[in-house]
Amino acid sequence: MGESVYSNYPPPLNPAQKAFLVTTVKDWAVQNGLMVRPAPTFVAKESNPHGVLATNAPVTLFPSPFPRTCFEEATALQTVYNQLLIDVDDFISRLWNVHQSVKNEGYTQTLSLGLYRSDYMAHSPSDASTPSLKQVEFNTISSSFGGLSSLVASLHTELLDSPPGHPIAYPSHPLFESNVPPENTAVETLSAGLATAHKAYGLSKSTPSLPTCILFVVQENERNTFDQLALFKQLTKVHKLPVFRLLSSQILDHTSVQSSNPSRPLIYRPPHSPESQFEVSTVYLRCFYAPSDYNTERDWEARTQLERSAAIKCPTVLNQLAGCKVVQQVLAEDAGPNHLASFLDNTDPHVMARLRKTFAPQYDLSTNGRGRELALNPDTAANHVLKPQREGGGNNIYKTAIPEFLNSIPESEWKRWILMELITPPSEAKNVALRSDGEVLGGDVIGELGVYGTILWDQAGGKVLHNEQGGWLMRTKAKDVNEGGVATGFSSLDSILLF
Amino acid sequence: MGESVYSNYPPPLNPAQKAFLVTTVKDWAVQNGLMVRPAPTFVAKESNPHGVLATNAPVTLFPSPFPRTCFEEATALQTVYNQLLIDVDDFISRLWNVHQSVKNEGYTQTLSLGLYRSDYMAHSPSDASTPSLKQVEFNTISSSFGGLSSLVASLHTELLDSPPGHPIAYPSHPLFESNVPPENTAVETLSAGLATAHKAYGLSKSTPSLPTCILFVVQENERNTFDQLALFKQLTKVHKLPVFRLLSSQILDHTSVQSSNPSRPLIYRPPHSPESQFEVSTVYLRCFYAPSDYNTERDWEARTQLERSAAIKCPTVLNQLAGCKVVQQVLAEDAGPNHLASFLDNTDPHVMARLRKTFAPQYDLSTNGRGRELALNPDTAANHVLKPQREGGGNNIYKTAIPEFLNSIPESEWKRWILMELITPPSEAKNVALRSDGEVLGGDVIGELGVYGTILWDQAGGKVLHNEQGGWLMRTKAKDVNEGGVATGFSSLDSILLF
Repeated sequence: MGESVYSNYPPPLNPAQKAFLVTTVKDWAVQNGLMVRPAPTFVAKESNPHGVLATNAPVTLFPSPFPRTCFEEATALQTVYNQLLIDVDDFISRLWNVHQSVKNEGYTQTLSLGLYRSDYMAHSPSDASTPSLKQVEFNTISSSFGGLSSLVASLHTELLDSPPGHPIAYPSHPLFESNVPPENTAVETLSAGLATAHKAYGLSKSTPSLPTCILFVVQENERNTFDQLALFKQLTKVHKLPVFRLLSSQILDHTSVQSSNPSRPLIYRPPHSPESQFEVSTVYLRCFYAPSDYNTERDWEARTQLERSAAIKCPTVLNQLAGCKVVQQVLAEDAGPNHLASFLDNTDPHVMARLRKTFAPQYDLSTNGRGRELALNPDTAANHVLKPQREGGGNNIYKTAIPEFLNSIPESEWKRWILMELITPPSEAKNVALRSDGEVLGGDVIGELGVYGTILWDQAGGKVLHNEQGGWLMRTKAKDVNEGGVATGFSSLDSILLF
Repeated sequence: MGESVYSNYPPPLNPAQKAFLVTTVKDWAVQNGLMVRPAPTFVAKESNPHGVLATNAPVTLFPSPFPRTCFEEATALQTVYNQLLIDVDDFISRLWNVHQSVKNEGYTQTLSLGLYRSDYMAHSPSDASTPSLKQVEFNTISSSFGGLSSLVASLHTELLDSPPGHPIAYPSHPLFESNVPPENTAVETLSAGLATAHKAYGLSKSTPSLPTCILFVVQENERNTFDQLALFKQLTKVHKLPVFRLLSSQILDHTSVQSSNPSRPLIYRPPHSPESQFEVSTVYLRCFYAPSDYNTERDWEARTQLERSAAIKCPTVLNQLAGCKVVQQVLAEDAGPNHLASFLDNTDPHVMARLRKTFAPQYDLSTNGRGRELALNPDTAANHVLKPQREGGGNNIYKTAIPEFLNSIPESEWKRWILMELITPPSEAKNVALRSDGEVLGGDVIGELGVYGTILWDQAGGKVLHNEQGGWLMRTKAKDVNEGGVATGFSSLDSILLF
């Protein structure tokens, strides 16, 4: 079907069809926990003093088409991506060690757990006959939406066969024939990663021995609680493991590291049962990823307490740093030393080439190089962005402004810039979304596919104990969100139909 | 343990324990669909124009103790109760036939489906050594809360073993040791009843043949949607049956009875897909039970259209009438003709006696009778209510006001009154509830246990095709609700721990 699949999708809805779908999606969300706490701009604190109200997560009425080749490539590469950052740790750790060596304490836990999500677009420039997979971002901390994403896939799957055997919930459309979203095992995969770490932690290091548990560290005023609770429920009901949630602001009050014990086990005393003690096998951070999570010295102290403990961290500070954009840029560089190969020394060169293909092409502007050619031609410049070589080195220059800009600066300055191909999502993609405030909005959209992966490795030696791919996330945004429009915008959870 | 179990239950909560339990219950409710739409007094329409907000169903923090003997008796008797009303239909039908004969049309569907709930209290008068089971009400239409009740049992069961293997969600209490609420199969049982009727309906009676479906007929502004959707989901996902929900106000617009077809199949055209036609096998009424559901002639017309169609009704008009209090009073009468026996002619006399024991004792005030003795003695009168023999014959006289009242009227009038023993729930029962608006309230409570049963029978001959018991409901009300208190009251879904 190619690009044309987007042009007549989704099928139009008459008012009765729209009313039915919206009502069904609203009710389904409540019944199945596809929910968020409402934003304060929607429900004021005064009118919900006890915080009981909840509303549907923003969600599309239809699954979005996605190229099968891109989906398969993304899932195939995930376990390679999972491994990519293991040795990057060494690189980043030079920075970290400056601090670490001051303390001169060393690590007591060498196992490290990553729950990752690699985000892609189906790059579909107008001159390409087939779409290709391009990475937008690689998340190494608090990779979210696995819980709710599985629910959206279930919602759309049910709607596609509703009522069973006589589907009429959606108007008919060729894309719906014998087609359902691929299985979405995000909850199972992410929970299995945590359970594997818990098991690898082994017996209690305390004397006397304590029961071990997994600790979710979460933000104050979290609205996305039910996404986290999907993993919590799987760990509790399927893996039968003790799991607790703790606000990051409460870490210092309710956890401690036994300084008398060289293994430094992390002890958790639940606020509601302070006489009970659990030893934390695995700390799962759903916080501490943004500067706004560190408001006081206490927050840094709390993070440090977790880090120096024997608990397996998901992620470690090093692993979080390894996920920074600057590292990913180094990996993506086509020119210069082959960092990618050095970090994945045991990987099949063919697979490495496929991995590299998911990076957006980058070029320097050296004389007679391809980059210079692409940047100076207004037609090809239109698909690119010009970025300064170093962070903070200037503003990005977009598209057709590039030739003019280059001509306005001395040619000797050109080497400070690199040219990157812009990722071009399918231009005709459309969908309809039910926002959390109940507004239903349709229009042109940009879809981002996330693929989940989990890895458990031993930092001492780099041995990989567990490396899995499983589950995905489709997020669909109204195009005008990126252009600064707010009033009519939406950013929704979605699912996919492969074509 | 006897009555004493109530005196130190539930265990007291300190502020941290209470905060933990309330947060856990709030979040669990959202994640698992233990939800209602908020009352307009809590969330005004203006602040939720699209009706997306939802909140937890009112729910107790703790399961309530309930005497095991009473629970077992209630479940044991349910299939007998299910049958009780089959022949009562004949009795009531004399009234109905007056109307029916005018139309002179007759029934085209002789199968009748009942989804019942028999409500009881654990009658615990201070002079009794053991509690006994007394029926409060027998519901024959729209027996609700089966869906949410199963969830409350799951919630309390999970809390009792949370985290798995090291339970600390509740303070410890002897009643919690190796004790969980009994299995609650309300969703499975009620759905199986509907699925059995659907199957018994058989092939389409239309030409050409149409796919058959179950139709839930529901009220406008229903807040208890997610209770209904639990059955809907079970029918769709487990039984794989087409199910639709339709507002009672839309019956005449979207259903029709083919007058040219003597079988009178009920045809449903979904508003969102009017070109699709389904033949309704089974109509499940979650409306039409109260006078307020019949606002216009159109509502009566709609009910009549369903009634005269070939669809199996749950319930039929006759069955709904049979559930009226007046009929149940006739059955309960100790004196006079033995209606109970005549309606259950094939029932073991021993079982019949057990059934009769669940009725609150009723006495006439004949000379030298037990009733007169109980009514005139202030001590025994205190456990009774004096009711006029016929509906509308006067107001009830309660407790110690009875002797004085009788002495104020001529003895010749006494025969117009009957004396009924009041049901005395355990006086020391207490619990804590989270209301839908988030208020947490504790105090003295009255608990009512409902037991679900389903029956499918053929009105032509009275043959029973299906008769099952399964699932239960515990509803717990603050005592002051019954005394007219509103501000501090609650009425909550609950579960039980047997003792």
